[in-house]
Amino acid sequence: MARLIIRGGTVLTADSAEPADVLIEDQRVVGLAAARSELSQAFAESADRVLEAAGRYVLPGGVDAHTHMELPVAGTVASDSFETGTRAAIWGGTTTIVDFASQIRGGSLHDALESWRLKAEGNCAADYGFHMGFADVNESSLREMDQLVDEGVTSFKLYMAYPGVSYSTDGQILAALQHGAHNRALIQIHAENGIATELLVAQALARGEVAPRFHSSTRPAVLEGEATHRAIQLARVAGASLYIVHVSAAAALAEVVGARDRGQPVFAETCPQYLFLSEDDLARDGFEGAKFVCSPPLRSSHDQLALWRGLHGGDLSVVATDHCPFRFQGQKDLGRGDFSKIPNGLPGVEHRMNLIHQGVVRGMLSLTRWVDVTSTSPAKMFGMYPRKGSLRPGADADVVIYDPSARSTISASTHHMAVDYSCYEGMEISGRVETVLLRGSVVLDRGQYVGRRGDGRFIVRGFCQYPS
Amino acid sequence: MARLIIRGGTVLTADSAEPADVLIEDQRVVGLAAARSELSQAFAESADRVLEAAGRYVLPGGVDAHTHMELPVAGTVASDSFETGTRAAIWGGTTTIVDFASQIRGGSLHDALESWRLKAEGNCAADYGFHMGFADVNESSLREMDQLVDEGVTSFKLYMAYPGVSYSTDGQILAALQHGAHNRALIQIHAENGIATELLVAQALARGEVAPRFHSSTRPAVLEGEATHRAIQLARVAGASLYIVHVSAAAALAEVVGARDRGQPVFAETCPQYLFLSEDDLARDGFEGAKFVCSPPLRSSHDQLALWRGLHGGDLSVVATDHCPFRFQGQKDLGRGDFSKIPNGLPGVEHRMNLIHQGVVRGMLSLTRWVDVTSTSPAKMFGMYPRKGSLRPGADADVVIYDPSARSTISASTHHMAVDYSCYEGMEISGRVETVLLRGSVVLDRGQYVGRRGDGRFIVRGFCQYPS
Amino acid sequence: MARLIIRGGTVLTADSAEPADVLIEDQRVVGLAAARSELSQAFAESADRVLEAAGRYVLPGGVDAHTHMELPVAGTVASDSFETGTRAAIWGGTTTIVDFASQIRGGSLHDALESWRLKAEGNCAADYGFHMGFADVNESSLREMDQLVDEGVTSFKLYMAYPGVSYSTDGQILAALQHGAHNRALIQIHAENGIATELLVAQALARGEVAPRFHSSTRPAVLEGEATHRAIQLARVAGASLYIVHVSAAAALAEVVGARDRGQPVFAETCPQYLFLSEDDLARDGFEGAKFVCSPPLRSSHDQLALWRGLHGGDLSVVATDHCPFRFQGQKDLGRGDFSKIPNGLPGVEHRMNLIHQGVVRGMLSLTRWVDVTSTSPAKMFGMYPRKGSLRPGADADVVIYDPSARSTISASTHHMAVDYSCYEGMEISGRVETVLLRGSVVLDRGQYVGRRGDGRFIVRGFCQYPS
Amino acid sequence: MARLIIRGGTVLTADSAEPADVLIEDQRVVGLAAARSELSQAFAESADRVLEAAGRYVLPGGVDAHTHMELPVAGTVASDSFETGTRAAIWGGTTTIVDFASQIRGGSLHDALESWRLKAEGNCAADYGFHMGFADVNESSLREMDQLVDEGVTSFKLYMAYPGVSYSTDGQILAALQHGAHNRALIQIHAENGIATELLVAQALARGEVAPRFHSSTRPAVLEGEATHRAIQLARVAGASLYIVHVSAAAALAEVVGARDRGQPVFAETCPQYLFLSEDDLARDGFEGAKFVCSPPLRSSHDQLALWRGLHGGDLSVVATDHCPFRFQGQKDLGRGDFSKIPNGLPGVEHRMNLIHQGVVRGMLSLTRWVDVTSTSPAKMFGMYPRKGSLRPGADADVVIYDPSARSTISASTHHMAVDYSCYEGMEISGRVETVLLRGSVVLDRGQYVGRRGDGRFIVRGFCQYPS
Repeated sequence: MARLIIRGGTVLTADSAEPADVLIEDQRVVGLAAARSELSQAFAESADRVLEAAGRYVLPGGVDAHTHMELPVAGTVASDSFETGTRAAIWGGTTTIVDFASQIRGGSLHDALESWRLKAEGNCAADYGFHMGFADVNESSLREMDQLVDEGVTSFKLYMAYPGVSYSTDGQILAALQHGAHNRALIQIHAENGIATELLVAQALARGEVAPRFHSSTRPAVLEGEATHRAIQLARVAGASLYIVHVSAAAALAEVVGARDRGQPVFAETCPQYLFLSEDDLARDGFEGAKFVCSPPLRSSHDQLALWRGLHGGDLSVVATDHCPFRFQGQKDLGRGDFSKIPNGLPGVEHRMNLIHQGVVRGMLSLTRWVDVTSTSPAKMFGMYPRKGSLRPGADADVVIYDPSARSTISASTHHMAVDYSCYEGMEISGRVETVLLRGSVVLDRGQYVGRRGDGRFIVRGFCQYPS
Repeated sequence: MARLIIRGGTVLTADSAEPADVLIEDQRVVGLAAARSELSQAFAESADRVLEAAGRYVLPGGVDAHTHMELPVAGTVASDSFETGTRAAIWGGTTTIVDFASQIRGGSLHDALESWRLKAEGNCAADYGFHMGFADVNESSLREMDQLVDEGVTSFKLYMAYPGVSYSTDGQILAALQHGAHNRALIQIHAENGIATELLVAQALARGEVAPRFHSSTRPAVLEGEATHRAIQLARVAGASLYIVHVSAAAALAEVVGARDRGQPVFAETCPQYLFLSEDDLARDGFEGAKFVCSPPLRSSHDQLALWRGLHGGDLSVVATDHCPFRFQGQKDLGRGDFSKIPNGLPGVEHRMNLIHQGVVRGMLSLTRWVDVTSTSPAKMFGMYPRKGSLRPGADADVVIYDPSARSTISASTHHMAVDYSCYEGMEISGRVETVLLRGSVVLDRGQYVGRRGDGRFIVRGFCQYPS
Repeated sequence: MARLIIRGGTVLTADSAEPADVLIEDQRVVGLAAARSELSQAFAESADRVLEAAGRYVLPGGVDAHTHMELPVAGTVASDSFETGTRAAIWGGTTTIVDFASQIRGGSLHDALESWRLKAEGNCAADYGFHMGFADVNESSLREMDQLVDEGVTSFKLYMAYPGVSYSTDGQILAALQHGAHNRALIQIHAENGIATELLVAQALARGEVAPRFHSSTRPAVLEGEATHRAIQLARVAGASLYIVHVSAAAALAEVVGARDRGQPVFAETCPQYLFLSEDDLARDGFEGAKFVCSPPLRSSHDQLALWRGLHGGDLSVVATDHCPFRFQGQKDLGRGDFSKIPNGLPGVEHRMNLIHQGVVRGMLSLTRWVDVTSTSPAKMFGMYPRKGSLRPGADADVVIYDPSARSTISASTHHMAVDYSCYEGMEISGRVETVLLRGSVVLDRGQYVGRRGDGRFIVRGFCQYPS
Repeated sequence: MARLIIRGGTVLTADSAEPADVLIEDQRVVGLAAARSELSQAFAESADRVLEAAGRYVLPGGVDAHTHMELPVAGTVASDSFETGTRAAIWGGTTTIVDFASQIRGGSLHDALESWRLKAEGNCAADYGFHMGFADVNESSLREMDQLVDEGVTSFKLYMAYPGVSYSTDGQILAALQHGAHNRALIQIHAENGIATELLVAQALARGEVAPRFHSSTRPAVLEGEATHRAIQLARVAGASLYIVHVSAAAALAEVVGARDRGQPVFAETCPQYLFLSEDDLARDGFEGAKFVCSPPLRSSHDQLALWRGLHGGDLSVVATDHCPFRFQGQKDLGRGDFSKIPNGLPGVEHRMNLIHQGVVRGMLSLTRWVDVTSTSPAKMFGMYPRKGSLRPGADADVVIYDPSARSTISASTHHMAVDYSCYEGMEISGRVETVLLRGSVVLDRGQYVGRRGDGRFIVRGFCQYPS
């Protein structure tokens, strides 16, 4: 039975930031002790390893609730495998991901889950769970939902975007929400009006508007707000909880706020790209903007501010990455001359903890809220708390030792994701992920990756732990 | 050149209620004169006919902007022909209707218009215009819009309800709105989420919920609010004006109010049935509720109050009837054992002016607002003002002489619509349409119909006269 | 019996803009006739005078519901007498003013009314009524309200600003509102939080902030919004109608809109200065800003836009001037070195009709709405309709013949108000007041003033005609 | 050095509900250990006392942030002394109170604080801090604020109610808020429009409305909403954080929600009486209603629901009691024949934890939220976290062992407050405070009070820990 103590640091949770020592046995946190207490002292004496954390934050490992490793998209495949993507996650202080297994139209949910399991199993550096992405809601796939819930896949995404691909009709969405109200699965919605967007895209292309920046003008914020409102009303009819993925627009957030103000159980996530990047990036010279094509698109600085305020005030619960990288050379350039052919998605899994920490540095969020939105809230939202997202006795000993005084620069030349560019190239970061434990094992040791392929295990998730 | 004077009455307009005499030459109002003035006296002396109106209101003829005469619906046909329906309109003080010509899926707008023209021409007792109901928005039918506008058909309805029949997708609605923003046609929307409704109906039937009252529970107000919000957002993207037909739910009205508060040109109509009847009527014993099946369905008393307040405050602009009668025997009973098979629609064209006058009597509306919502506003909304909806010099001499002190009782046994029941059977009415002029000719003379088939003429309408 | 006809023009009302001829006998409109009709022809033949109005607008005389002629303020007196001020009004197309008689603290309402009557009687070029400004709400002055209502003074202003001078407490305001709910008088509120403002002013002066622009920073829009909200809630408790004078801030308008959306009878006025001028004018070099000191202060361009939208959409009912001029030399300069000593008020009575017409030219308002907000609505609001604000048979023949194609430039060197500067110096105006009739008499004849001192008569006003 | 372990229970915090053992040394929590872990076992072996908590909740001691012990009110004095009141608090699981020292008009803040200190010192069974209640904001008392902050009195209440007693003008409130923005003190507001209320009360008494229920009709919810809005706007002008005490009305909560939605740092508290009692209680037969007279008054069941939802959703942060008991015999009856003379205030300090636990039982709140609103949030709000409101290593060992399966009945015959009635007489309670520790000492031992007068110590508080 391995014993390990992290001592002298400031333990951060969603609720407090206080000096304490973390006592670990085997894979779990076994105790928290007052710093320099006799109790701590005694434990340290019997410990196999003592990690000194003076001047450091000690926080629960990050939980990235929205990734797409190896995702097949329009004839190509997201460039990070489960192996490379989860290793990059560890470098960035994220010890758990929840990836989207994706049903193929006409196929079963089980086949999709099986296929994703095979891709992940034995390859992951971080623990992993699966959401299921619906492409075909029907009686058979709704029945499958119940079985997936039993297997620990308790959240299901539907798309109001992407007609002809993963799009669900309002009837299918309502049916899934009704089913979720019944079997307690959480329905996640990609909220953009895909049908209206399709028209705007076709009209833009017909006018010769083919550059990456037209990706944004054809997906106006109003249509994200609209779809968000619609999803909320359908959830109201169904009596179901609802989770809106990757909110990018102030107009969409306003709908979430309105629903929450009247007591409806609606939750929302945003992503670092919507907090730090904008449509100005999409409009960069030449084809450079293609690096920033994702859906919903990057918005304005006004929207950024609204999102920061939503995180601060609690109406946005989760920061996830929607990590879905494509190489600029050979993948993004499929859309030269037609922005609608640019594979949608950005790399991000590695930088989430560091980026949101910049929000703390800039006074947008408190330290405790940083931990909350990047670790505790996603763990609660997706039924993994308190094993994940917590440092309380009994929790998995997924721990990040973070040095707030270190500085570094983001660059594709130094990052660990399998992609040839960074959206944040040259950005200076205050703070650094120094050491990472995954279930009690040190996998990143003072900046050295010391883990192994297959460290990560599949997580059987429970239900959303937020009250409805 | 026929001369006629209506004297001694109180002239009501959307703006004032004052004693004045109305001077008519040929088909037009040629002057308004102070009561008992020399001017009036001189005109009366040379007049062919003097109508004494002491103790009466003298108001512009009613304009019913939403009727469905002879409409084919699900294997049957609305029971009022243009002949019987417009005659009933005259009895009720309505001198102009705007009926919905309706495209057949796969057919052209022109064919629909031609077909409706043939039905109406030479048969109408009141003047008539046409809206066009889209069932198939595509490049060809959008091109046809421009031609119809030239022919005086300047408003076009799209359905968010009725999938598989007249339903338009959000893309089609957006395209039509864009086209309207371009050619100044006004887009009208039936705002209910038809796709979600379809599921709720199927689920209800599967549970054995077949009685008429389930028509209401499967079309919840939330889904009317949702569709109204969506239509408003699509109009926002298109930069187009928007008109919501038959608002029945407070939730839908709230969306209209929100849009108007931020300056968006959104207009709305309601109908007498939503002001006076409720879901309690739908829930009447046995199959009796079938008499009250229309879409959107009747709502609660809370919704009624909100609608009255909307009329009072100006956020609802128009009261129309959505007149679409089906006989209880032989038509409504097609839906015995399956509420979804009950033909949707209520008789109403005859009682609109009287019913809204009850709102005046009960203190819900002012006299001037009564004239506004039943005559002036619909005339402005649909490009017929000031020929219709006005008594100013130059206007068509469509005039109602109304006796506010008379009393009567609504009954199928005495009404003039070709339908075997009344939704308001036994309701006592304060006030009575006494005499009606259509373009200067007396067609209802102190309670006697003296007009002829074919009195009514087609109106080439201009554009919506409300500022966008 | 004098007969006069205005023919060939476009008659504008709050409701329509149509060619018609206006027939006048003695002091009243006796008829409206279709242009070039036999009726019109016959009348013209017997008329004493025919005014040709081809290419002109013919509209009801303007009603300025907010003026302060000869008002004593802080040791000085507003520079326009009733004589000079109402003559300037006629030049500007305004044929009726409602001035504020103002109670002195400790004095009676009757004394105030008597004092104002003496100032006005026999001196006015335009018709005039009085509001009463409360400075001392108590049992005795509340009793006097009833008597004033009987004498045609049916509206009463209370100040939430100006502590120690005309300020009323919330208890006094509530008492007056309750009394208004009972005797149907309309309560008008100057809505700024005077108590908080007093502190901000003292703090600014203590910091040496003495220039005119600090008049604005010490009266933030938030405190106008606050007071407006408070007045609305007090009216709600009292069950009374409420009229907010001179709304300047978007924040205040938003409160009015909210109240109206829930059906509360709340009405509001704005002034040309809040539509055309801004805090940038207050911040002009040197002491120049003193010319623009009024309360509430000028706001931002954002607020201007909101006010235009409120006028367009109907939530602002009235445009009045709050005309209260002080000469730059000898009056405004009382506040050199201390902005709080600058007499508050701007000249404006002459330019209201022309300025709001610029809103029409710029596409912010329709022609009918121009007439509505400057003439018809104030006449209805303050119980003078349809004698004032209308051209219907029976109305007072107060008529403006307006040439929309003329152009002129506003300047102190050409205006007719008794003040040595203009807030709009050099502004080019499209349109010109050409001829003005006051109760059937031509008082301005193609740009020549031909009226006489004492033409104007006192108006015994009735109750507010807007439904509560 | 005393060692104590509480083991086998479910540790509840604002964030989690998990099995864990609490290790205590001297006055502090020194560690949390996984249940039955070796670590726990070792500690237990060396402990002086082992408290078994199987089947029990183990939570941080309650913090009641709003009490009035021995408060002089209108010629009488609240019936609980610091001794009896804090002992009752311990019985109810509350280990910390913050009482309101109250300035006398004309007196200094220091004198008030000194006077309260003398009353409390050496007499309290629970730890205690002080807020300061302003009755006289002026330059001198504002200067004193800074000194009080240094002494650990960091929150200051102002009254918009009670004119002539503790009422502050808007100017005084603004000045205090400005000062708070500067010295980081938190301004608390009693938000009712006292000036308007005074009028309504006088009018009611004049109408002979003297029974207790008129206490409610003369303090309408609209006037609480109004004052709340006003306080929020004044805080906005000052750039200050704001805390609204005892929110009772949905209308007031809506204002708080609106402010929070736009990011303004506004916080609010409610009390058990507003969650469980209503105006129906005030209207009980005879003089019985006097038992329920407090300000703001009890509201409707609609308001109750809104408050529960506000607690659930996070817009209400704190549940405090506003404990201010008066005996029915000899105190409340001062107001027989004149409700305005009934001393305002209810007993409550003993039942807060139990009452809010009923919210958990009824599904209105989660277990963690129970702890949050009764302990953690008030500790953070008033600068005592994590010493209070937490069980993390380093925290004061204020602990409640709560048996959720026990049942009891509230009654004046068994409660420990010095008052002769209970507002909740006969109410059955699920759950029971079994054992209470104050800084490591057992003061309530399985239902036996074993503490001593003077156990409680004065708490030097820091600043509000919620981000502004």
